[in-house]
Amino acid sequence: MTISRVPHQRPLRPTTKALPEDTRRHNRSLVLQSLFRGGPMSRADLARLTGLTRVTTSDLVAELMAADLLVDLGTRTESRVGKPATLVGIRPDATTIVSLDLSDSQHLRGGLVDLTGTITEHRSIAWEGRTGADALELVCDLARTLADDAGRQVLGVGVGSPGIINRHGVVLDAPNLGWHDLDLAGELASALGVGVHVANDANASALGEHTFGGSTGHGLLVITVGQGVGAGLLLDGNLLLGDHFAAGEIGHVMVVDPGEPCACGRTGCLETVLAAPLLRRRLEGTTPAEARRVLAAAGRRLGSALAPVVSTLNLGEIVLSGPADLLDGPLRAATVAELRRRTMPVVADDVTVRLSVLGDDLVLTGAAVLVLTGELGVS
Amino acid sequence: MTISRVPHQRPLRPTTKALPEDTRRHNRSLVLQSLFRGGPMSRADLARLTGLTRVTTSDLVAELMAADLLVDLGTRTESRVGKPATLVGIRPDATTIVSLDLSDSQHLRGGLVDLTGTITEHRSIAWEGRTGADALELVCDLARTLADDAGRQVLGVGVGSPGIINRHGVVLDAPNLGWHDLDLAGELASALGVGVHVANDANASALGEHTFGGSTGHGLLVITVGQGVGAGLLLDGNLLLGDHFAAGEIGHVMVVDPGEPCACGRTGCLETVLAAPLLRRRLEGTTPAEARRVLAAAGRRLGSALAPVVSTLNLGEIVLSGPADLLDGPLRAATVAELRRRTMPVVADDVTVRLSVLGDDLVLTGAAVLVLTGELGVS
Repeated sequence: MTISRVPHQRPLRPTTKALPEDTRRHNRSLVLQSLFRGGPMSRADLARLTGLTRVTTSDLVAELMAADLLVDLGTRTESRVGKPATLVGIRPDATTIVSLDLSDSQHLRGGLVDLTGTITEHRSIAWEGRTGADALELVCDLARTLADDAGRQVLGVGVGSPGIINRHGVVLDAPNLGWHDLDLAGELASALGVGVHVANDANASALGEHTFGGSTGHGLLVITVGQGVGAGLLLDGNLLLGDHFAAGEIGHVMVVDPGEPCACGRTGCLETVLAAPLLRRRLEGTTPAEARRVLAAAGRRLGSALAPVVSTLNLGEIVLSGPADLLDGPLRAATVAELRRRTMPVVADDVTVRLSVLGDDLVLTGAAVLVLTGELGVS
Repeated sequence: MTISRVPHQRPLRPTTKALPEDTRRHNRSLVLQSLFRGGPMSRADLARLTGLTRVTTSDLVAELMAADLLVDLGTRTESRVGKPATLVGIRPDATTIVSLDLSDSQHLRGGLVDLTGTITEHRSIAWEGRTGADALELVCDLARTLADDAGRQVLGVGVGSPGIINRHGVVLDAPNLGWHDLDLAGELASALGVGVHVANDANASALGEHTFGGSTGHGLLVITVGQGVGAGLLLDGNLLLGDHFAAGEIGHVMVVDPGEPCACGRTGCLETVLAAPLLRRRLEGTTPAEARRVLAAAGRRLGSALAPVVSTLNLGEIVLSGPADLLDGPLRAATVAELRRRTMPVVADDVTVRLSVLGDDLVLTGAAVLVLTGELGVS
């Protein structure tokens, strides 16, 4: 038994056995992840970066090329001493991802996403009030249409859906869609014959922001503001699902007491001060100065709700996703000011609050990340 | 490239290469963890539980017996068909852990802890106002004394210290001890020649509660109430350290506005309503009914601070650690009631709020868990 000082944050808490094939799969993902994050490079650089031997690296590159995931990009152009090295990189168009965003109450949105996170095709269909089996049929139809459009291998299907969703893609409860204990991942997998990965829409948003939105810290909280208010939390790149898969339900925390009635039947929820339609109604007919006051008041409520969360988690980054005209101005400024007022400098000084750069495509992008991670081990 | 449906919560995000020896170490920890959690069992049961082959299991058991960590416990006593099986189990007294609790402002506390979490020896020394190098010397002296007392191999030293501590055991900032950027783990490792694992005291408390306090959920928040108020958060068994290692600073979140001045220089912090000396002062000379009101008011403030945290994390378990006469009564009841009032039923119905069963030994026990995890991969 060796005695050595080991960092304690990521303890080795084994729950299943490790096999030699796990080692190989791990190292294959390590190669993909290095190219995904670092861009094209030579096999020698890849070996240096991963710590794998030249032979193992070349074997894994050959295997991934045979699977059409990597491509030879010719020799390096800059002048160097010695033989020019051949670069290898991920083929962005080798395969495509079918992404679905079920978060909007009016339209079901879908897209094809390549391995760089670029959405190459958008489609949307009106829900027209469909729920239950009808809503599921619409989702399967759109996924099938997109897969047919793809004209190439589909890596998998990713879905961001409202509701409480377990780690196997079962929608435990999504009242607006009339879904309860619906195995959405299983249904789509049967319909399309590919791997399907489903997450809550706010959780998908957090993944999208992390991988393609320029997120920098260990802890990232994405607050989604639309008809409702939700949140997705990533800690060290891992989605937090919560003890009963209901993490992120910040929209129904009471922040005004006594407050206005909420759709959930309670009063003073964060949603009653922050949901987009309610904010727009309050802004109707106001002067610019009054509008700023309305938005700042909403920001202060958000800041007060976030203060204990940011302090407990020592969170580095908060991203707001929703209408920029509402969120990115007096509201964001007041959120930051209230956070600073209510937390210690050591906590508040290091937190950034910004808008998502991915706009309306955040859920679609995040749903694609579910597939990248689930199928290739990259994020 | 196989296409399959994979749960997405624990994505394979490789950052370092995996080696065959990682597989062996992983499986060795798997055997230890199975015996640690499941108690003594036969090699056959161990193979079934771990999924390892009989041969691999027997090899690993032999290796761990040679290292004196496992012991043969004779044949199973209950009658069974066939040959009686020999049981193997962890030797609780094979090795001992030196644990240190630096959280009390009056006394430095230490102990020897066996592999079952039992504290076999307690020692304490008055700090007598020592800070800086003098405080470090006292800590090293107590660790050395305990190691000498042990009379057997020391598995490692675990320390729960106030302050902000990084994952390598460097105390970045502990104002009360006058420590800044002090490599406490390194200093102790040099002094004692064994592995040293250091964590913030509230974080150590969370580990102690998780491993030896009967914690059940995925998410556990331990709130420590003493001179100050701190918190330690475990998610799926992993300590959350935060973007700048300052996670758990809930004591200085503003919960009363306008509130009373706090030691930190701000006002209305949770500490101003919950710290033990302040609560005791407020209870002086009160009637029983008044005392209940004072405690319930503090509980309501705690509940309101916890509501956004519990909702964002969908936290299953909150454990209060501190004086039971203050915490376990009207205060705890009011905390629960306020949490329910301020969060959705799906969140509030599943959270339990209870007192730690480990009492004053929680930090010492948790410091021992740091060593168990860091040295043996069990928790």
